[in-house]
Amino acid sequence: MKYGNLFSEDTYSFFRSPVRDIFKKVDLNAIHSFAGGYPSSETFPLDTFKSTMCAVIDKYGGKAFQYGATQGVTELREVLSHRYGVPMERIQITSSSQQGIDVCTRILADPGDVILTSNPSYLGALQSFRSYRADVRGVAHEDDPDRFRAAYEAAIGKALSEGRKIKFLYMIPDFQNPSGETLSIKEREILVELAEKYGFLIVEDSPYRELRYSGEPVPTIYSLAPDTVLHLGSFSKIFAPGFRLGWIFGHPDVLDKIYVCKQSLDLCPPVFDQYVAAEFMGSGSLDANLLKSIDLYRSKRDLMLSLLEEYMPENVTWTRPDGGLFLFLTMPEHFDSVSFYDTALSNGVAYVAGSFFRTDGGGRNTMRLNFSFMTPERIREGIILLADLLRSRM
Amino acid sequence: MKYGNLFSEDTYSFFRSPVRDIFKKVDLNAIHSFAGGYPSSETFPLDTFKSTMCAVIDKYGGKAFQYGATQGVTELREVLSHRYGVPMERIQITSSSQQGIDVCTRILADPGDVILTSNPSYLGALQSFRSYRADVRGVAHEDDPDRFRAAYEAAIGKALSEGRKIKFLYMIPDFQNPSGETLSIKEREILVELAEKYGFLIVEDSPYRELRYSGEPVPTIYSLAPDTVLHLGSFSKIFAPGFRLGWIFGHPDVLDKIYVCKQSLDLCPPVFDQYVAAEFMGSGSLDANLLKSIDLYRSKRDLMLSLLEEYMPENVTWTRPDGGLFLFLTMPEHFDSVSFYDTALSNGVAYVAGSFFRTDGGGRNTMRLNFSFMTPERIREGIILLADLLRSRM
Repeated sequence: MKYGNLFSEDTYSFFRSPVRDIFKKVDLNAIHSFAGGYPSSETFPLDTFKSTMCAVIDKYGGKAFQYGATQGVTELREVLSHRYGVPMERIQITSSSQQGIDVCTRILADPGDVILTSNPSYLGALQSFRSYRADVRGVAHEDDPDRFRAAYEAAIGKALSEGRKIKFLYMIPDFQNPSGETLSIKEREILVELAEKYGFLIVEDSPYRELRYSGEPVPTIYSLAPDTVLHLGSFSKIFAPGFRLGWIFGHPDVLDKIYVCKQSLDLCPPVFDQYVAAEFMGSGSLDANLLKSIDLYRSKRDLMLSLLEEYMPENVTWTRPDGGLFLFLTMPEHFDSVSFYDTALSNGVAYVAGSFFRTDGGGRNTMRLNFSFMTPERIREGIILLADLLRSRM
Repeated sequence: MKYGNLFSEDTYSFFRSPVRDIFKKVDLNAIHSFAGGYPSSETFPLDTFKSTMCAVIDKYGGKAFQYGATQGVTELREVLSHRYGVPMERIQITSSSQQGIDVCTRILADPGDVILTSNPSYLGALQSFRSYRADVRGVAHEDDPDRFRAAYEAAIGKALSEGRKIKFLYMIPDFQNPSGETLSIKEREILVELAEKYGFLIVEDSPYRELRYSGEPVPTIYSLAPDTVLHLGSFSKIFAPGFRLGWIFGHPDVLDKIYVCKQSLDLCPPVFDQYVAAEFMGSGSLDANLLKSIDLYRSKRDLMLSLLEEYMPENVTWTRPDGGLFLFLTMPEHFDSVSFYDTALSNGVAYVAGSFFRTDGGGRNTMRLNFSFMTPERIREGIILLADLLRSRM
C-alpha cells in the first residue's frame, strides 16, 4: 500500500512545520528542560483531587460518565459565568484551549484568508492556522502606541490591497507565549479599534492571565468589546493540563457555529473532567490552590532572573515577565539557536528556538525558556549549564 | 459586527446538515428517547470508578495530571496492545472515536475527494466528511456477495471515470449504526480486495464490536489487512462515554501523520482519563463489567424485539441485530419519519429519522431506535406510544 498519494494537501502542509519532532524525540523529564510549557506537578493538590472526584461521583452519579452537552455541562458553564461575569449563552467549553484555537480557525478561515498575529506568536496556533492553509502574517511589536497602530494598519492595508480577506487577529495579550510580555490597555484599545474599523474578529488567547506575579492586571480585550472578541481560556495552568479543558467566550451567533463544528470534532468535552473542574472551582479549592501556584512561580521566575543575571554572557538579554511561564532570550545576531539545539540537548539542556515562533522564520538568535516546570535546583543547574554552553559558542 | 462574511465555506457546509438541532433543542432525558446512542448509566460501576481513580492517583501522582504524550500514555497503549494483539507502534489514542473519524478525514481528504460508505451510514461521520468538502458516496447494501461486490465496484468505477480520487471507504462492520447489521467475512474480504486493487484505505469504525449478544464474532477488517485498514475503537460503549477516549490502529506511516495533526487539534488526549482506562482494563474490571453490560443489553434488545412484534402495525418491519445499540425500522413507502418527528416528540417519544443517515436523503420511511439507554419500563411505554402514533398516522 502506498500512502503518499492518499494524504491531503493539509497533511503535507503540517509537515512543513519545523517543530513536529521537538516533543517526540526526547524525554523532556530526563534532562534540564526549559522547553515545554508545563506547570509544576507540585501545584496539583492530589488529596483534594481525590476528595473532589469522590464528591462528584456521589453528587452526580452516572450522569458524570454519560455523554454530555456539546456546549459543555451546565454546572461548569455556571461557575465560569459567575467567576468571569460572562452570561451563560456566551460560554462554550472546549477540550483544551488548543482545540479552541483550532475550532475558531476552522469556522472562520478558508484557504488563503489572512490571519494576523504578533511576531513572534504561539507555535501551536501557527501550526493550526497553517493546517487550514491560511495566510499567517506576523507584526513585530512596537513599544510606542502610534508606531504600534501604524504597524498593524500597514499589515491590514497590505492584505486588503491584495484583495485578501482578513478573518481574525490572534493575540496572547497577557504574558505572551513566547515573549512573556503583556499588552498595555492602550494597545488593546488600538487592536479593538482596528478590528471594528476593518471588520475582523480578535481571538484573544489567555491561558496565563491568572498567573500574575507582579504589576497590576490589565482588562481583557474581550471586556473592551465582547462582540468583536473570541476569548479563549484554559484550565491547564490554573487547574491541571491532564484534564483537557478550556473555554471560549464570544457572541452567541459565533458560538452557535462552533457548537456545530464541535459536534463533528468530538461530540462533547470530557464530561467527568468538567464536573471535577466545576466542583474544584465552585468549592473554592481552585482559588486557594492558585494562590500557592502564584507564590511558587513567582519565586521560580525571580530565581531564573537572578541566575541569568549572574551567569549569562554580557551580550545576552532577556525579557522580565510579570506573569506566565516563559521568558525570552536574545543572543547576538550571529548566534543560531536552531543549529545550537543538538549541542544543548546532548549536554542535557533543552529550550525552544525562537524562530519556531516566528511567522517569517526570523529570530534565530532567540530562544524561549520556561521557568515553571523544574525544581529550583534543576533550574539552577540548567541555567549554569546553558550559560556555559552559550559562552563557549559565542 | 457582521459575522456572516467572516465564516468559512466549511462553516456553511456544516449548516446544510439537517441534524444540527436534534440534540440541542430537547432534553432527551425528559422523554422516551430512542434517539441517542447512549449506553445505560447503570453499566457504570461507580464504586469501582472511585477506587480505580484513587489507585491511579496513588500510583502515578502528579504525572496523571500533567500534559501527556500526543500518541497517548504508554500504559494505555500497552493494555490495548495486549488485549487486541496489536503492536504498540500501531496504536494512537484519540479523544473519542468521533475524533478518530475527524482526524482520518483531515489527513486524507482534500475538497472534492471521494469517500465511499454504506448507505445508510453513521451521521456523525457524514457530517465530518462533508465539513471537509469531501464527495461522500453511499452504496446500498446487497445481500448476495456477487451483487455486493458489483455495487461497490460500480461506485468505484464511476468515481474513477470522473477523474476523482477515492481516499477511503468508511464502514461500521459490526452492528452497524444505524441498521444494526453485521458484515459477513466474505463481504469484509471483498472490501479489502477492492481497497487493495484500487489503492484506497478502509476506515473501519468499530465502537460496538464487543457488545455481541448472539451469534459468532467475525474477524475485524483490520485483522485481514492491517496495512490497508485504519481501525477505530472506542471506550464509550465498553467503559463510559464521559471519558472521551478512543483509539486508532493503523500503519505507523499513517499514524505519524495523525500524530502531527493531533498536536494541533488538542495536543494530547485527556491524561487522567487514560490512566483510569488503563487501570480499569488492566485490573480486569473492564471485562467483568462488560459481561454484565452484555447481559443487560441482550435483555433490552430481546424486550424491544418482542414489544415491536406485539405492538407494531403489520406493515412495519425491523432489523434483528446480534449486538450493538440500535435497530432500524422500515415503514410503508408513503410514511415520512422526518415530518412525523414533531408529532412524536410532542407526544413524548424521540427517534432519529433514517434519512439523516443517508448520503442521498432517501429512506424517509425509516427510523433508528436505540434500545440500550432507557429502563425496560420506559422502553415498554415508549414502544407502545410509538406504535399507537404510527398506527394513527398510517
